[in-house]
Amino acid sequence: MPEFRQNMVSKEWVIIATERAKRPDNFVQKKEERKPLPPHKKDCPFCSGNESLTPPSLFSVEKNGVWSLRVVPNKFAALQSHLTTERKHEGRFLKADGFGIGEVVIETPSHHLTIATMDPVDVKNTVIAYKERYNALSKTGRIDLITIFRNYGERAGTSLEHPHSQIIATPIVPPHVRNPLYQSQLACDTFGDCIYCGMMEEERRQQARVVEETKYFLVVCPFASRSPFETRIYPKIHRSSFASISDVELIDFAFVLQDTLKRLYAGLNDPDYNYVIRSAPIEDSEVKYHHWYVVIVPKLTTPAGFEIGTGIYINATLPEQCAEFLRGVAIQ
Amino acid sequence: MPEFRQNMVSKEWVIIATERAKRPDNFVQKKEERKPLPPHKKDCPFCSGNESLTPPSLFSVEKNGVWSLRVVPNKFAALQSHLTTERKHEGRFLKADGFGIGEVVIETPSHHLTIATMDPVDVKNTVIAYKERYNALSKTGRIDLITIFRNYGERAGTSLEHPHSQIIATPIVPPHVRNPLYQSQLACDTFGDCIYCGMMEEERRQQARVVEETKYFLVVCPFASRSPFETRIYPKIHRSSFASISDVELIDFAFVLQDTLKRLYAGLNDPDYNYVIRSAPIEDSEVKYHHWYVVIVPKLTTPAGFEIGTGIYINATLPEQCAEFLRGVAIQ
Repeated sequence: MPEFRQNMVSKEWVIIATERAKRPDNFVQKKEERKPLPPHKKDCPFCSGNESLTPPSLFSVEKNGVWSLRVVPNKFAALQSHLTTERKHEGRFLKADGFGIGEVVIETPSHHLTIATMDPVDVKNTVIAYKERYNALSKTGRIDLITIFRNYGERAGTSLEHPHSQIIATPIVPPHVRNPLYQSQLACDTFGDCIYCGMMEEERRQQARVVEETKYFLVVCPFASRSPFETRIYPKIHRSSFASISDVELIDFAFVLQDTLKRLYAGLNDPDYNYVIRSAPIEDSEVKYHHWYVVIVPKLTTPAGFEIGTGIYINATLPEQCAEFLRGVAIQ
Repeated sequence: MPEFRQNMVSKEWVIIATERAKRPDNFVQKKEERKPLPPHKKDCPFCSGNESLTPPSLFSVEKNGVWSLRVVPNKFAALQSHLTTERKHEGRFLKADGFGIGEVVIETPSHHLTIATMDPVDVKNTVIAYKERYNALSKTGRIDLITIFRNYGERAGTSLEHPHSQIIATPIVPPHVRNPLYQSQLACDTFGDCIYCGMMEEERRQQARVVEETKYFLVVCPFASRSPFETRIYPKIHRSSFASISDVELIDFAFVLQDTLKRLYAGLNDPDYNYVIRSAPIEDSEVKYHHWYVVIVPKLTTPAGFEIGTGIYINATLPEQCAEFLRGVAIQ
């Protein structure tokens, strides 16, 4: 029997369409879909030796003068840092200059790796870089929201093969971000605590959708997953902003992020995916009603007209089965 | 210079990223991407002669006992009509049976056509079928929202080649639909009139984004287009629900829908697309603050992590240039 399920925070619904049910292993990718990459590419702007093709580093991890991670301004950023944040009318329409800051985290000099296959030290450096740049950007002024994300593979919207993440800082908090914040604020006004903390308590009680639990993090396939293998990583200690993650939590975060991506990599044979760190806006960085988390969306299905029209995603796979599948993946 | 633009109703923002600017003709599809289809396919459930593969018709257009259009229940519907609408708790989570109604509009017996290439009479019958079924479904009770949509091509999420649209009736109005309704209601409470009517007035004044205007409809590439060639068809007479379209408007609607799709078909060489008729919920079918419309989204780009995280779409193509391009397409 199909069922509607509601996202506890956003209040959006999904349809878990069991009549069209697909088993998790239906989503294992075909081997030939990903071409093997060389460890170094002569014309890749992110490979070592090609540093002159990017602007100078904003942050880097080096050993004996050799870098293993660089953060550079995004040369092709959608937004630019020298503009104003002033709103302007164009007739009845509202617009603003495209002010904002875009950066690229080059996670390793090696062209052919990805988080699932990288040295854990490089993953740790990647999340350290996320935190460093998040904190630096939040202090620049005029920035309201910092979004850290990773697009992996063509179906996830990237054409650059070299392992990298992106950071975009914007002077705007859009309704897409503000609306769930209102909901979690209302829940907190009503029940007095963080709706995410309560949700985690429920997930730990039910267990069916838990992929993994470490000292500081809980990994689940959400109750109202919009697509197969949607996976979220929640910090168990209440923190509204990624910026306030402690050093010891950061080490655990690097582990759990890589571990989860390894499960997807090994279990589904290296699928394309996006992940996003959803953190509170800068001004709401220490509030009891919001809770930062990572959402990982493997690109296995295509949203269509119904999703565009209603925001109700039809998901033909049970999150409980996806979680069970991921728990069972043998990883090193 | 890049700019933020706000959708006047939803208040969501887009980034028009002119530094990455792509000209409209960059999106012309390669010829080989669409395989030519046969006019009839032996195993297609929607081809003539295979009527036994679908449930009996709910509505049809026939001449001398031969059908040219059929509406049938969707055999593989995500929702089912025999369930309840009762909300249930699963711990702290909320769910409901997957009650709803799914129907398929088989627009023509010919396997190889699409709206852009069909006989105009079949397009007229298609929109007549939309209205007939919309009205019938709105009277069944327990239905709050009716979504009519068309998925064309694999990138638009369909695997069925035979020309068809879908109708899904749900017992839920999700936040994705409700939030813009709140906004248009607030605008109406503030300014006293329909925000969509005001927006159309502005589009007609500025002209730059108008693709076409007929007696009853205005076709525009929206000011805050989320992706290249997003196109919307607005009825010029204020109506909140598609259900209340008059017969004479319906004829014009069939023309303008086909005309717009012909421009995309001829101009971009037959791209994949989704379209959706966004109509008011059943209970709000006669209100002065909402206005129904069609949104057409050609599938030319891939939303990625930033879009998932913020709802802010990065669009590298000016809607003004897309409208100019579509105005210039020579169609029969």
